[in-house]
Amino acid sequence: MSGHPRNEGKGDCCEQTHLDSQYSPGYYWLGNNTLKVPLVLHKENRQRLVSQMLSKHKDQIKENSFILLEGGKSTMQYDTDHEPLFKQERYFFWTFGSDIPDCFGIVGLDEQATSILCIPKLPAEYATWMGEIRSKEYYKSIFLVDQVLYVDELLEYLKSKNASTIYTILGTNTDSGSTFVEPQYPGLRESFNVNNTLLFPEIAECRVIKSPKEVEVIRYCVDASVSAHKHVMRKIKVGMKEYQCESEFLHHVYNEWGCRNVGYTCICAANKNSAVLHYGHAGEPNSATVSENGFCLFDMGAEYHSYTADITCSFPSTGKFNPEQRVVYQAVLDASVAVMEAMRPGVSWVDMHKLAERCILVALTKAGILVGDIQDLIANKIGSVFFPHGLGHFLGLDTHDVGGYLGDCQPKVHSLRTTRTLKAGMVITSEPGCYFIKHLLTQALANPETAKFFNVAELEKYRNIGGVRIEDDILVTENGCENLSKNLPRTIDEIEAFMLK
Amino acid sequence: MSGHPRNEGKGDCCEQTHLDSQYSPGYYWLGNNTLKVPLVLHKENRQRLVSQMLSKHKDQIKENSFILLEGGKSTMQYDTDHEPLFKQERYFFWTFGSDIPDCFGIVGLDEQATSILCIPKLPAEYATWMGEIRSKEYYKSIFLVDQVLYVDELLEYLKSKNASTIYTILGTNTDSGSTFVEPQYPGLRESFNVNNTLLFPEIAECRVIKSPKEVEVIRYCVDASVSAHKHVMRKIKVGMKEYQCESEFLHHVYNEWGCRNVGYTCICAANKNSAVLHYGHAGEPNSATVSENGFCLFDMGAEYHSYTADITCSFPSTGKFNPEQRVVYQAVLDASVAVMEAMRPGVSWVDMHKLAERCILVALTKAGILVGDIQDLIANKIGSVFFPHGLGHFLGLDTHDVGGYLGDCQPKVHSLRTTRTLKAGMVITSEPGCYFIKHLLTQALANPETAKFFNVAELEKYRNIGGVRIEDDILVTENGCENLSKNLPRTIDEIEAFMLK
Repeated sequence: MSGHPRNEGKGDCCEQTHLDSQYSPGYYWLGNNTLKVPLVLHKENRQRLVSQMLSKHKDQIKENSFILLEGGKSTMQYDTDHEPLFKQERYFFWTFGSDIPDCFGIVGLDEQATSILCIPKLPAEYATWMGEIRSKEYYKSIFLVDQVLYVDELLEYLKSKNASTIYTILGTNTDSGSTFVEPQYPGLRESFNVNNTLLFPEIAECRVIKSPKEVEVIRYCVDASVSAHKHVMRKIKVGMKEYQCESEFLHHVYNEWGCRNVGYTCICAANKNSAVLHYGHAGEPNSATVSENGFCLFDMGAEYHSYTADITCSFPSTGKFNPEQRVVYQAVLDASVAVMEAMRPGVSWVDMHKLAERCILVALTKAGILVGDIQDLIANKIGSVFFPHGLGHFLGLDTHDVGGYLGDCQPKVHSLRTTRTLKAGMVITSEPGCYFIKHLLTQALANPETAKFFNVAELEKYRNIGGVRIEDDILVTENGCENLSKNLPRTIDEIEAFMLK
Repeated sequence: MSGHPRNEGKGDCCEQTHLDSQYSPGYYWLGNNTLKVPLVLHKENRQRLVSQMLSKHKDQIKENSFILLEGGKSTMQYDTDHEPLFKQERYFFWTFGSDIPDCFGIVGLDEQATSILCIPKLPAEYATWMGEIRSKEYYKSIFLVDQVLYVDELLEYLKSKNASTIYTILGTNTDSGSTFVEPQYPGLRESFNVNNTLLFPEIAECRVIKSPKEVEVIRYCVDASVSAHKHVMRKIKVGMKEYQCESEFLHHVYNEWGCRNVGYTCICAANKNSAVLHYGHAGEPNSATVSENGFCLFDMGAEYHSYTADITCSFPSTGKFNPEQRVVYQAVLDASVAVMEAMRPGVSWVDMHKLAERCILVALTKAGILVGDIQDLIANKIGSVFFPHGLGHFLGLDTHDVGGYLGDCQPKVHSLRTTRTLKAGMVITSEPGCYFIKHLLTQALANPETAKFFNVAELEKYRNIGGVRIEDDILVTENGCENLSKNLPRTIDEIEAFMLK
């Protein structure tokens, strides 16, 4: 099975171990044709982080300094004993690759990036209820760390090393506005000098630039998602429930690709629901029936080893575009193609967003929905009536991955999740969209300053069409970019031909 | 579509509405052959609660008293903007049937059980991202409440009614040991007399006794789960990954039955993993390969309208029992049959647990694994070496539903989730099991007091067999009980015949 092309050169030593477990020393693998992930990926991450910290802050960082991270906690739903499936905190996962709950992790700010994984000491009854209690040695061999301790040995370890400064994460996630919670370890602040300002921007910046091994995992998530989107496009029929499409996607990525989770709740929006950007949540649970003239906007991405894809396919339920769907889809496709042609290191993401917006405005003007000079349309923010979200976002362990407002970012632009200049190694979504959103159109038509740009009679034909989004996952390369999701049918001809089969 | 037998007599008026939504006035329905749930179910729940409160505490409850519940909050994962799929808090759901996050609910302690649902006031941009912003009137018609308010109007409402006492929930969940968080509403305690002791046991007790409408929803969850378990038994092949069985189950209950969630993480334990009671969590993610001689213990239950099933099927991977598997399976089946024959109102659940344990000990003695007098085995707690969990638990909105230690319960017995006497209307799992758990056997054999009961040579043959659990969902009726999951193949002959097909 390791003979599969994607696992070439990764050896056969662990086949037997993987019959019983997702782990073998140094590897995560779910068998069959799933990806064998070398956990040295995380050792490299630790080394990247430490060398960046040391090279940028050499003067400030004293000897015997350590990074301290706290992993995610196991939780129960409300007051019950129902435990939702644990998802590891992403900074911790990036650094250690371990999905054990209730851990801490230490990385020495030394040349070797000495790593210590601190695991919870489990009660004997864990073996009855949850599974074998493994040894420290076992975890050391799996996760390629220098040492494994129990959590309650952490303080003692740091003291034995005469730790000078402990670096922890404190920072605000620019997508959520939420603040990261610093490690809560009793006695830590009393025993050591804790610095919570230096680490955050550095570790976030390391997460922005993906290593080749990280790209390989993301590529796998994208391949799984592309395969599943195509499966859904083949399966869909008028009269199906939206959630049945979600179910097909989830089954495909889990059963055939080992992806138990998706990076975000599936958006399976048919008919006018395709104009609701984040449809599919518990309040709008993909419960409509796919109609004859319904346009589908399916935004779904599979997760593997905690990395995720984020892909949107838009297509008519019948596989055949009607004239209005053709106009709107082509407008968005023009934007998508223009952006991908322009993307390369050194290019500003704000410019890419503007480029996409301009393409859409030009197409809507050509179609007679809008009237007036493009510059005037832009100046009057007509673009955001149809395209009210940003062009894209970093992608990695989080769907909206961190670091959008670090580095050389420009000041926050409303709706944009990053304003940075592209660099090789970034993975970012390109997701231009064009939607006919009732309340935004009503608002624009109510204001004489903006109403004059609309041809209301023409607009009327499109009012119930919903929306189109074309979302690809793009790796910025040294000389340009690579569309990781390029195997999707994307042109109108390709989609019609594919769905007819 | 409402012509399906299970929806008979529920009328066709809302067919059109359900093309677009899970809701129509007074109904929750996911279309096709899924169950149409009349939301009057929750109105009846409110009425049951109020009349129980008023009849039992007439003297204590003053006029103008109100029950106040707080629904679940929408949450984000760690510091990110990833929103896990919202699950409503269960006391709130039981009372109002609404899965809108960030709500409060008021029930008047009056004859009419006047009900007020308080919904969050949503910002205009909600319509762009999440979906249509519906009116108060809309929600009033859907959820059959007397009034809908915005959350920020709650205090004013209670003041306008000259509210005397506000009853809130404060109590400890006996499965988790966690304490329920009382409603956090600014100014509430300053403005009113709050009583947090009276409500909890009453509402929990109401949840213990299921109404006929609640039973119908649970029955549907059980039917879906039975169908999916059978699907998996037909699909399974040696060499499959355990998670592929999970994926088949999840797809079946979602695609064909509209069950987006399961009540708990799927336990798909093959081979020796079948001896790990709660296998399948993120640390042991159903990642083993089903082997030739592997015994499967699959514990999975589908959720619909927030109610859940909880069912375990145990069977050999090949569909053919070997002699040892036959012995252990029959021991557990004997226990299961004996319990179901004895279950009726007035019977103590502790006695049922003891009955099951005795059946298993008798069978293991007959098989020569244990030696000695049954009474001695019981006195020396040999039962809990093989059967270390309780016989079952209440089932409803929670997998481990509330109220196990209310009413006439006996003092807490280790491992038992309830010690009550059965009453008509209870729904409870019967799940005897027999497992060969390494560390429990090692412990028992290390102690001369218990080691003498084991025939070590015979035991050796069973060491790697794993375990068996047979879990059914049982409704206690006026005269006995009904096994809601009776359509599963359960005897050895039935399983072998079914899997051969």
